[in-house]
Amino acid sequence: MSAQADRIYLDNAASTPVADEVIQEMLPFLKNQYGNPSSIHYYGRETSRAIQNARKQIASLIGANPREIIFTSGGTEADNFAIKGTVQYLKKTHVITSSIEHDAVLEPCKSLEDAGYDVTFLPVTREGFVNPSDLKNALRPETALVSVMYANNEIGTIQPIRDLARIAHEAGTAFHTDAVQAVGKVPINVKDLGVDLLSMSSHKINGPKGVGALYIRQGFKIAPIIHGGGQESLLRSGTENVHSIVGFGKACELAQNRLPQYQQQVSKLRDYFIAQIQQKIPHCRLNGSATDRIPNNVHFTFFGVNGEDLIIKLDENRIAASTGSACSVKKQKPSHVLKALGFSYEEITGSLRLSLGLQNTVQEVDRAVLILAQVIEELRSLSPFKSKYS
Amino acid sequence: MSAQADRIYLDNAASTPVADEVIQEMLPFLKNQYGNPSSIHYYGRETSRAIQNARKQIASLIGANPREIIFTSGGTEADNFAIKGTVQYLKKTHVITSSIEHDAVLEPCKSLEDAGYDVTFLPVTREGFVNPSDLKNALRPETALVSVMYANNEIGTIQPIRDLARIAHEAGTAFHTDAVQAVGKVPINVKDLGVDLLSMSSHKINGPKGVGALYIRQGFKIAPIIHGGGQESLLRSGTENVHSIVGFGKACELAQNRLPQYQQQVSKLRDYFIAQIQQKIPHCRLNGSATDRIPNNVHFTFFGVNGEDLIIKLDENRIAASTGSACSVKKQKPSHVLKALGFSYEEITGSLRLSLGLQNTVQEVDRAVLILAQVIEELRSLSPFKSKYS
Repeated sequence: MSAQADRIYLDNAASTPVADEVIQEMLPFLKNQYGNPSSIHYYGRETSRAIQNARKQIASLIGANPREIIFTSGGTEADNFAIKGTVQYLKKTHVITSSIEHDAVLEPCKSLEDAGYDVTFLPVTREGFVNPSDLKNALRPETALVSVMYANNEIGTIQPIRDLARIAHEAGTAFHTDAVQAVGKVPINVKDLGVDLLSMSSHKINGPKGVGALYIRQGFKIAPIIHGGGQESLLRSGTENVHSIVGFGKACELAQNRLPQYQQQVSKLRDYFIAQIQQKIPHCRLNGSATDRIPNNVHFTFFGVNGEDLIIKLDENRIAASTGSACSVKKQKPSHVLKALGFSYEEITGSLRLSLGLQNTVQEVDRAVLILAQVIEELRSLSPFKSKYS
Repeated sequence: MSAQADRIYLDNAASTPVADEVIQEMLPFLKNQYGNPSSIHYYGRETSRAIQNARKQIASLIGANPREIIFTSGGTEADNFAIKGTVQYLKKTHVITSSIEHDAVLEPCKSLEDAGYDVTFLPVTREGFVNPSDLKNALRPETALVSVMYANNEIGTIQPIRDLARIAHEAGTAFHTDAVQAVGKVPINVKDLGVDLLSMSSHKINGPKGVGALYIRQGFKIAPIIHGGGQESLLRSGTENVHSIVGFGKACELAQNRLPQYQQQVSKLRDYFIAQIQQKIPHCRLNGSATDRIPNNVHFTFFGVNGEDLIIKLDENRIAASTGSACSVKKQKPSHVLKALGFSYEEITGSLRLSLGLQNTVQEVDRAVLILAQVIEELRSLSPFKSKYS
């Protein structure tokens, strides 16, 4: 039995297993097809063709033209590129974003602030929605870009992107959305959404790590942030990450084909998971939106419990979960998302994210709820708030 | 028989086959170990540990401390990071580089020029050497950084990096070297060299594409260019490209173990290749340095022949070669390297790079020389300079 056989992985928002079909597509580009796609000989043509094929697969998933897809090293670079590239090209001084963005958007914005730019961080409702009228009021003639995420990585709330993009455009401002947590999980059509820029990541949808893409609407102008050999239509230099690009393409093809199944199956499992938790565990509260929520997100506050302790206890019981963004762990700071929702310190520290994938089963959810209930009871019995919650 | 079986790949400076041992090390991180290294549970710890192991392997190859290795998406990003990151941190206004750098250095420097910085592009000798006294004269109090490549990607000339770094440091200026073409091919020890920053790429040394590293000397301060979750000691955000990082680590371990063999075997094959060309093909000239040359580089001018035509004819004969940097192909411009060497238009367009790897054999070289001789004779017979060279 492998080390993973009886483990339950409920951290699919952090990263996902690479699909077997994806690995099979990648292998030839590790084994025999090692040409530099810029080379004009046979080896270069083979890898160049593979990249163009992947570009089509990725474009198809989001209703884009293949020429509108620029490969990056991942979602973080795509976000940095969208924000810094637009600001640099337009030479305007103001950016608007939300206060619950991923650090991959917030930190580039803060770096712009350090460089003298002005950044507005829009507030959100208790469920995590940006209020369109707040956006309207924040827009200025010097606003270069509005960047609001499609779905939040911690609480799963889906923003009204179409409305927000329209408001930005009415004011003559460009619109970017970090759709890393949404692509492949809900139907997305960039033309219908009306966004100028959209960030994607491969490893969130059963593709390999180390690759992502920025959708750039045809005609939209942006400056590169990585300069060199001029790959990716002069917008992103560096020898292309061929094997991972090929894997990302295949992952998008799979995601597109299975999207109805994903939505139906994972949402159902999520709703079951939520109902079971609410039924079996006292003093808990579902966070985020009950309606506008990505299919794979379960996010609860368990009162009287510390989320970090919970993760560790779950891990001892072979269950992988998260308090929120994996990326925030390095910084050892309380979640800026939950803070922005207006959560108290107790509510923030008592929070847990359980994120599903197509591979998860009802049996896994049942076992997870059982163990979660036990672990929470145990932790509450040791808590100073013992009398309150146990 | 596979499509490659009778092909001869002589473009190892553009990219290299991934070693089987490297692929074997990578596979578990595509198949079972899919955790986000920032996650604190089992899956995250496994991938985090793998990254630390790779960091040690990479550090070992260049005599660095593992903490001095920061992973990037490749050599191009490492160069961008070194140059823009240093300039931004130091807030000085002048950069010095050479006129034969790879575009991954030249283009970031030109983007700094566009942003109002001052950049000096040092001339080189006919063999491609930067003159240390030219560097001395170019240094100013406001010089943030000197960036000179270790070995040139077209002609293979190895610069006197230790001397150049010392001169920069004597003037209180930081020193970066793009060692993408040199790492794993000649012994490199960063402490001995005295550089502050050194760029590496995985796919040039039988590792996967899409990953590289920047060596940053302990204590040297630099600003990140990609902001987000704070990975890589807050210096390079984005979920780590685990499988490729693991492959890069293994490639460095292999390169370190086989370095004496590589140097001996590939240099010998190169010298044989050069001698055979000189013996069998009239009106040709070896470019670069006869002594300070990376082991795998063969670079000739064949007078009366167009290099592009040569590549295409060689490709028809199942031989992969290059006119120079694969990355320059996108730009369809004559080599800036050969221009800087003082080559005439005829010398530039008649140039060919043949770059070797450990997998190449004497038989392959013999066949390549035979075909090269035939193809050149054929092309010359069609040339307007027919009477001159055939």
